[in-house]
Amino acid sequence: MTSLTAGAVAALVGGELTGSPDVRIAGVAALDAAGPGDLAFLADPRWAAYLAGTRAGAVLMDPRFRGHAGGPATRIVVADARAAIRTIALRFTPEEGTGWSIHPTARLGRRVRWLGRIAIGAHCDIGADVTFGLDCRVAPGVRIGDGVALGDACVIGPGACLGIAGFSHAAGDHGPTDLPPTGKLRLGHRVTVGALSTIARGSIGTTVIGDDTKFDAQVHVGHNVRVGARCLVMAQAGIAGSTTLEDDVIVAGQAGLADGLRVGAGARIAAQAGVIGDIPPGATVSGYPARDHRQVLRHAAALARLAPHARILEQLAHSAHATAD
Amino acid sequence: MTSLTAGAVAALVGGELTGSPDVRIAGVAALDAAGPGDLAFLADPRWAAYLAGTRAGAVLMDPRFRGHAGGPATRIVVADARAAIRTIALRFTPEEGTGWSIHPTARLGRRVRWLGRIAIGAHCDIGADVTFGLDCRVAPGVRIGDGVALGDACVIGPGACLGIAGFSHAAGDHGPTDLPPTGKLRLGHRVTVGALSTIARGSIGTTVIGDDTKFDAQVHVGHNVRVGARCLVMAQAGIAGSTTLEDDVIVAGQAGLADGLRVGAGARIAAQAGVIGDIPPGATVSGYPARDHRQVLRHAAALARLAPHARILEQLAHSAHATAD
Amino acid sequence: MTSLTAGAVAALVGGELTGSPDVRIAGVAALDAAGPGDLAFLADPRWAAYLAGTRAGAVLMDPRFRGHAGGPATRIVVADARAAIRTIALRFTPEEGTGWSIHPTARLGRRVRWLGRIAIGAHCDIGADVTFGLDCRVAPGVRIGDGVALGDACVIGPGACLGIAGFSHAAGDHGPTDLPPTGKLRLGHRVTVGALSTIARGSIGTTVIGDDTKFDAQVHVGHNVRVGARCLVMAQAGIAGSTTLEDDVIVAGQAGLADGLRVGAGARIAAQAGVIGDIPPGATVSGYPARDHRQVLRHAAALARLAPHARILEQLAHSAHATAD
Repeated sequence: MTSLTAGAVAALVGGELTGSPDVRIAGVAALDAAGPGDLAFLADPRWAAYLAGTRAGAVLMDPRFRGHAGGPATRIVVADARAAIRTIALRFTPEEGTGWSIHPTARLGRRVRWLGRIAIGAHCDIGADVTFGLDCRVAPGVRIGDGVALGDACVIGPGACLGIAGFSHAAGDHGPTDLPPTGKLRLGHRVTVGALSTIARGSIGTTVIGDDTKFDAQVHVGHNVRVGARCLVMAQAGIAGSTTLEDDVIVAGQAGLADGLRVGAGARIAAQAGVIGDIPPGATVSGYPARDHRQVLRHAAALARLAPHARILEQLAHSAHATAD
Repeated sequence: MTSLTAGAVAALVGGELTGSPDVRIAGVAALDAAGPGDLAFLADPRWAAYLAGTRAGAVLMDPRFRGHAGGPATRIVVADARAAIRTIALRFTPEEGTGWSIHPTARLGRRVRWLGRIAIGAHCDIGADVTFGLDCRVAPGVRIGDGVALGDACVIGPGACLGIAGFSHAAGDHGPTDLPPTGKLRLGHRVTVGALSTIARGSIGTTVIGDDTKFDAQVHVGHNVRVGARCLVMAQAGIAGSTTLEDDVIVAGQAGLADGLRVGAGARIAAQAGVIGDIPPGATVSGYPARDHRQVLRHAAALARLAPHARILEQLAHSAHATAD
Repeated sequence: MTSLTAGAVAALVGGELTGSPDVRIAGVAALDAAGPGDLAFLADPRWAAYLAGTRAGAVLMDPRFRGHAGGPATRIVVADARAAIRTIALRFTPEEGTGWSIHPTARLGRRVRWLGRIAIGAHCDIGADVTFGLDCRVAPGVRIGDGVALGDACVIGPGACLGIAGFSHAAGDHGPTDLPPTGKLRLGHRVTVGALSTIARGSIGTTVIGDDTKFDAQVHVGHNVRVGARCLVMAQAGIAGSTTLEDDVIVAGQAGLADGLRVGAGARIAAQAGVIGDIPPGATVSGYPARDHRQVLRHAAALARLAPHARILEQLAHSAHATAD
């Protein structure tokens, strides 16, 4: 795909075009970075100030920005401009992303098997008996331990390590002893693992990742964790051993979950939250120890209210105590 | 080792067998994942509910579960079922874990030396003058900088980076300047480093890791840190430059220690704790800034008690202040 | 450079020498690790106790330590001993650090270009159309995605991943959907990226890192982030998508910044701080949610003062409420 007309863009996204349908679009870009051959988009009020100054050839926008003046003469108004720009961006994705091959520098163990097509990047190390479903993509420098099973259309980011030994140390007579990891790791379909993330195999038993679950970069998942379907786990979050996440859980960046917990379906764990107890379905928690996010905000507000009077409240408490004596 | 009888298992762990001593065991597995050829185990009340439904051929259990009905006819009761399953699991560890070789894709610098046997995985990069003790194992994709010294039986996880340059930047006239790292890194015996962990060399002087200390995945250790013997450092924890951990310290996941501190022997740093001052031996600390864990819990409880009354307490403080005026 | 005399050291740093100018110095080391051929230094009162016992051949020291007894007979007093030891350490940096070459195991994509000299380590994977300025150094195992642009004298640590796809998932009908990353990543001059750090390309638009900015190990930078000049980002910190850091910002270890924020010039984000709103220029913030560091300390002190009286204050509040009714 080398270029599209603005008219073709409008047709592809079902949008309403004003201006010239003949403007040629050769790529997508942010409002402040776009040039005359780019399609920009406006889906967030924080970006509205960039509309007037953009050099974009055309702009996709949500209907609420229709009244904003300035910017390209060619506009396409569409119900969800963010979704629409994705549709168009897909048309311009570089073709090398579609290469299916195993790089000659990758090391494959015995009996590695896959269905359909597979892409394995340079310097990967794939252990014995690893199985891939249809159309998996493995970026350069990934290490996958023996016997790990991946479903269809999994995408593994550069340098990620799947099926590592979990951290099962117990203090013995001569220091910590290791439990040899005889367990497994199984990923469902369409699982994405970000760059430099680590997912441990079971120590005994299996670590399981559900369909359509996505991990960002530098995430850590401990041994025997069970993650449900459609979960999102953001960068640098960590999940300790044997914890279970039900379906549709969102774990924000740098959050941590202790071992052996259960997080109910649809729960949201805020950034940096430290979860040390079970979380009910649908709850939103933050802070350390993590608790209901509204309570966290109420407590913080209460402390801000009381802090300037701490000394006099302390005196009142002393007086009350003296009176009571 | 292809299989053991249940009778042999009982003899190996010193357990009391009921049922058939002839059941053949070919592996270990969790209660809910085990098949007829597997030995399962029960050492935690949270797993007792899985006993009745397990398909395991036999089960190891702590004495307290003796009265639980259901599950395999062949049971082995043993004082510590968790320790016992480890003993048996070791018998079934895959043999390829015992291969001693240097993969042809690994790059070794000049004068790399080792004692006894060594295993170095694919795509490792080992710098000049690195020395290994007896029987070290280095997983694929590990980078070890020039001159790093490892003791006997060290195990380095995939993608770990040992002996990197520390972060020693100071604001100069033209931005931060680097201190070239001329220092060293020395690991004791039986040190384990998890996947994708980073340990810096000294900037000047040496970073030292004591015997039997274990690091989980994605841990960071700064330059000139000194870690004692038998410490455990969990996933995603970080230790800043020049901090000292005495022996037997436990640092839980995502905890962080600032630079130049001393943590006393046997101290426990809770998950996500942010340590910005010295910690006495044996203390348990949590929170940010990290302080005695019981105090953290008391303060949290006090705030929960006061928060609903913040407004009225504020009024009381104002009244008291007015009266005092 | 194999050795220097103490007199030559004094001349190089502009220091005042007492003792023998003929002592030969073959390296630099910390006071407690130095041997007779080493130059040690004293720039911090915490290290003064090591002066008397050091085996160093000579010592560089700040003027304020002039009166301290003991230690090597050969001393060099200099206005800034820490800066001076850097100057000397540079003379002893191992020569292999100055090799300029591309290791034969590195994979380079089509049309990779560089100016002047370049060093690319073993097992690197450099994508198509990547451009380097003058004299860049890329450590072993680094992955750089297609089209990433680096300025002059950039230094990329082992295993770092530049130009990865950002985490742009939105919940669609059939689970999260990806936005194909068509954006770019551009690093300025003299940017340092630590080991195993990850920097995402723009999803649409460009992720930009300013001149002289330094990232420590295991840092994560999301898509479309803009980092100014001369920023310092310590180990394990994370910056979520589309956030802007102006010039001279310092982000301490394990701190996290949410997406879409602006951090003003010269602001300091304390270790483990969780930033969820804009930060004004020059501010110092800590805690979660991050706020003025002095306020954090005041609130913590107030809570410590009130906690022992929580029960009686609760009673006072109840009484006041009853009176008011």
